Amino acid sequence: MCLQNYRCRLFFLFMHLQLIGSGAAAQVITSRGTHGNYLTIQLGSALGAVFGIFVARGVSGAHLNPVYSLSLCVLGRHPWRKLPLYSLSHLVGAFLGAATVYLQYYDAIQAFSGGELLVAGPNATAGIFCSYPADHLSFWGGLVDQVVATALFLLCCVALEDQQNGPLPDGLHPVLVGALILTMGVSMGSNCGFPLNPARDLGPRLFTFVAGWGEEVFKAGGGWWWVPIVAPFVGGLLGTLTYEVLIEAHHQTTPQSPQQELEEVVVDSGNNR
Amino acid sequence: MCLQNYRCRLFFLFMHLQLIGSGAAAQVITSRGTHGNYLTIQLGSALGAVFGIFVARGVSGAHLNPVYSLSLCVLGRHPWRKLPLYSLSHLVGAFLGAATVYLQYYDAIQAFSGGELLVAGPNATAGIFCSYPADHLSFWGGLVDQVVATALFLLCCVALEDQQNGPLPDGLHPVLVGALILTMGVSMGSNCGFPLNPARDLGPRLFTFVAGWGEEVFKAGGGWWWVPIVAPFVGGLLGTLTYEVLIEAHHQTTPQSPQQELEEVVVDSGNNR
Amino acid sequence: MCLQNYRCRLFFLFMHLQLIGSGAAAQVITSRGTHGNYLTIQLGSALGAVFGIFVARGVSGAHLNPVYSLSLCVLGRHPWRKLPLYSLSHLVGAFLGAATVYLQYYDAIQAFSGGELLVAGPNATAGIFCSYPADHLSFWGGLVDQVVATALFLLCCVALEDQQNGPLPDGLHPVLVGALILTMGVSMGSNCGFPLNPARDLGPRLFTFVAGWGEEVFKAGGGWWWVPIVAPFVGGLLGTLTYEVLIEAHHQTTPQSPQQELEEVVVDSGNNR
Amino acid sequence: MCLQNYRCRLFFLFMHLQLIGSGAAAQVITSRGTHGNYLTIQLGSALGAVFGIFVARGVSGAHLNPVYSLSLCVLGRHPWRKLPLYSLSHLVGAFLGAATVYLQYYDAIQAFSGGELLVAGPNATAGIFCSYPADHLSFWGGLVDQVVATALFLLCCVALEDQQNGPLPDGLHPVLVGALILTMGVSMGSNCGFPLNPARDLGPRLFTFVAGWGEEVFKAGGGWWWVPIVAPFVGGLLGTLTYEVLIEAHHQTTPQSPQQELEEVVVDSGNNR
Repeated sequence: MCLQNYRCRLFFLFMHLQLIGSGAAAQVITSRGTHGNYLTIQLGSALGAVFGIFVARGVSGAHLNPVYSLSLCVLGRHPWRKLPLYSLSHLVGAFLGAATVYLQYYDAIQAFSGGELLVAGPNATAGIFCSYPADHLSFWGGLVDQVVATALFLLCCVALEDQQNGPLPDGLHPVLVGALILTMGVSMGSNCGFPLNPARDLGPRLFTFVAGWGEEVFKAGGGWWWVPIVAPFVGGLLGTLTYEVLIEAHHQTTPQSPQQELEEVVVDSGNNR
Repeated sequence: MCLQNYRCRLFFLFMHLQLIGSGAAAQVITSRGTHGNYLTIQLGSALGAVFGIFVARGVSGAHLNPVYSLSLCVLGRHPWRKLPLYSLSHLVGAFLGAATVYLQYYDAIQAFSGGELLVAGPNATAGIFCSYPADHLSFWGGLVDQVVATALFLLCCVALEDQQNGPLPDGLHPVLVGALILTMGVSMGSNCGFPLNPARDLGPRLFTFVAGWGEEVFKAGGGWWWVPIVAPFVGGLLGTLTYEVLIEAHHQTTPQSPQQELEEVVVDSGNNR
Repeated sequence: MCLQNYRCRLFFLFMHLQLIGSGAAAQVITSRGTHGNYLTIQLGSALGAVFGIFVARGVSGAHLNPVYSLSLCVLGRHPWRKLPLYSLSHLVGAFLGAATVYLQYYDAIQAFSGGELLVAGPNATAGIFCSYPADHLSFWGGLVDQVVATALFLLCCVALEDQQNGPLPDGLHPVLVGALILTMGVSMGSNCGFPLNPARDLGPRLFTFVAGWGEEVFKAGGGWWWVPIVAPFVGGLLGTLTYEVLIEAHHQTTPQSPQQELEEVVVDSGNNR
Repeated sequence: MCLQNYRCRLFFLFMHLQLIGSGAAAQVITSRGTHGNYLTIQLGSALGAVFGIFVARGVSGAHLNPVYSLSLCVLGRHPWRKLPLYSLSHLVGAFLGAATVYLQYYDAIQAFSGGELLVAGPNATAGIFCSYPADHLSFWGGLVDQVVATALFLLCCVALEDQQNGPLPDGLHPVLVGALILTMGVSMGSNCGFPLNPARDLGPRLFTFVAGWGEEVFKAGGGWWWVPIVAPFVGGLLGTLTYEVLIEAHHQTTPQSPQQELEEVVVDSGNNR
């Protein structure tokens, strides 16, 4: 059923690409840092998203995260009935993406881990696929980290798409979403690896569960697995509403007719370009 | 009162975002370099500013620094009476941003420092929030460093906004301001951490003062704290005036009527695009 | 004959530039990591392609890889009869580019290797010029790696050029192709160095064969040399067809007349810019 | 006299900015790698050039290098009589820029070197300001390196400015020149530090000569100093002529009337945007 729907197919593709982006983690971990470092992992995540959006933008718009879809539903800009199917497609796409990464790095993971698929310790490989908390992180600390990070992430995502806030040249939007993911990685990545996206975290976790890492992927970190699912939804709504209250509200108090906008564009062309 | 003013709210938000950008320092310091390096700290500072501007650009313009606001006042392009409120909003926003970083990295900072909030030594964490001079730096050396760095910073900021100097595509301006901050970080960051912005330095310093680092944050470096407040204003004025004398003066000697500009744009469209 | 053809000359030039980009590998290897690291090698590969395209884009279009030319032939957008000449030009250009790198780094390679031109071991220098598999990589693992990587690479290349999928500002396309190569490097480079391009791998391999590294360049890795020639063609066709089925097919079900497109552009100008 | 000329003033400013960009080297060297690495030095060089061009582009065009000015003279696009004054301005600007870097890093250089200003050895600081050959580099190797590197550099510079070869959005050109310098740094920097620009190498060398490093700055590397002055002119002419022969010649064999171009632009607007 879903496969007859183009948007679903694209979500498969998109999450695939995004996951492939995280092949960067496989590369750094299994090469023990000789083929990259923390920055190249962030770059991989960011660039995976950039090209995922470039491939799919003509058809599916910018739905890159169930949190984003939910925010649009809450704001009344997206039909609620589509949310479950969209989220399921994201989840399945992320699962398949993780399988592709495992396929491509099968030899490297076997050589690195001596054949044992572990969640913790110096030969752990589960962190290639989904998030686990750092040793220092408390349960509440993890919740706070993900709520704050996803709030900022969605706040910026919504701002980038708000044409009233300022236009962007065609083609710059996907690049900026990538830069935003890089920002999250360099600024908010050391506590628990900036999951930010419930589907991208749960899908690969389910894959590692069935592929041989076992139930430890759900037990690790004191049952950490549900934090990167719940906290991003809370943070995402918080960020979206903050933007609505601070910026959108301002736009509404200074409304413009389409005609006015058009005239401004014409005037701008004379002055700015 | 201030919260009824949209621009003030935005300053809160903006400094928040910029400070969150400096979560990159918390990440690198508390992970002892395993989750980033000097370059990721610069990238965090730069990208925090980029997205701060993208979020707020539709409403508040490009006021990202009290030094910049002061420069515009001196040039007669901004009303002096607004300067105190703007600067105060920047300061409060930076204070709150520092509080958010502390909240998000609370567990990491406690684990790193063993619970002691220190300004100096191998377990120091105060450098996450505001600038301290390197051991080699003399008092005069610090003043020179910040005057030179802020002069170049403002010179380039003013040049990027000068439409007569050459147009920029919509959306490129925030990216270039970020690149400029990255430039400062890689070229002028080792003496005292390129503060460049009095509000962004004093606000977080006040936060660390009340949050437990104590009066050492003002005593350290022989009473360093006022240098990154005074020197940027001096340097900023110097840089702005240099641009006015060298470039703006030239524009004035070759004036164009709006009509001429419009014609040039049309001709350009034919040749260049 | 070929030299009378401008496109052929450009291929020489282009592959030259792209190969020079891989001088980055020579720099990192012969300086034993003091003048760069894994990331600078990726940046070199990416930037070499960016400027190769910028130099040649006005004349030769975006043919940067025989795999890409083949894909276009299969899709019926490029004449089959031109394929052999294009591929040969790529090959000769890559050979000459490798010779230039060797010329420029002759002293460094001699000093690094003690005068011995080796394919394996700590003083190996053959990896500067073309791909060799990592120790952990099995034969099938290498095939899978290159098929997956090239499929994604071509999928994204085709998407970036599909105007119906979304327009790009002039000049952004070469930059994005570079970013795509960087993506491949940080995410899919540790198994066998992301060759992706048969001409760019075989040409320099032939050069090292004649320049003194000897027949070991073909024997190494259990006769690895033909994998980066065959697998990219398979992967490239797979990626191109995936894009055709998922995205192009969708475009065809929602056809637009040129007139409609023009109107949309005009409407867009009013709304988005 | 020269100071009455706006372009000369701008050259001072420009070379200043470009040299300040190389404060990145001072930062990395004097911090012994704790505040940056090889990549941040390249980024500093590249970003210094980017902002130098952004500041000056409205007035002085893209003359960033005496080699470039000479190439334009040879091609008949720039008057020969202006060449000496332009080159002298570049030289004086580079000298003053080096002085500014020394002023800003005076404390750091003193602390690093123990007060001794050395050209060679582990505490050498002369490499902050201008180029010296690596130990492995022979005299001919250095000439080849600089001829090849400058030829590619100028080839790409000329291509980026050739509007017939393909248009660039306003504001992208300076960014691409920066990316080109980064390319040179990551791919052709380990032999002798990619000087590429006679004025930027000789000006700072003269400064270090008078500032206390002494005549060793001219004796080092077997009298290396004149190689980065002569070789770039040779390479630059070579690169410019290669572009003329390969690409410009092609443009001339397929001439277009301005009217045709205009029509193409209009047609493009409908298809591509």
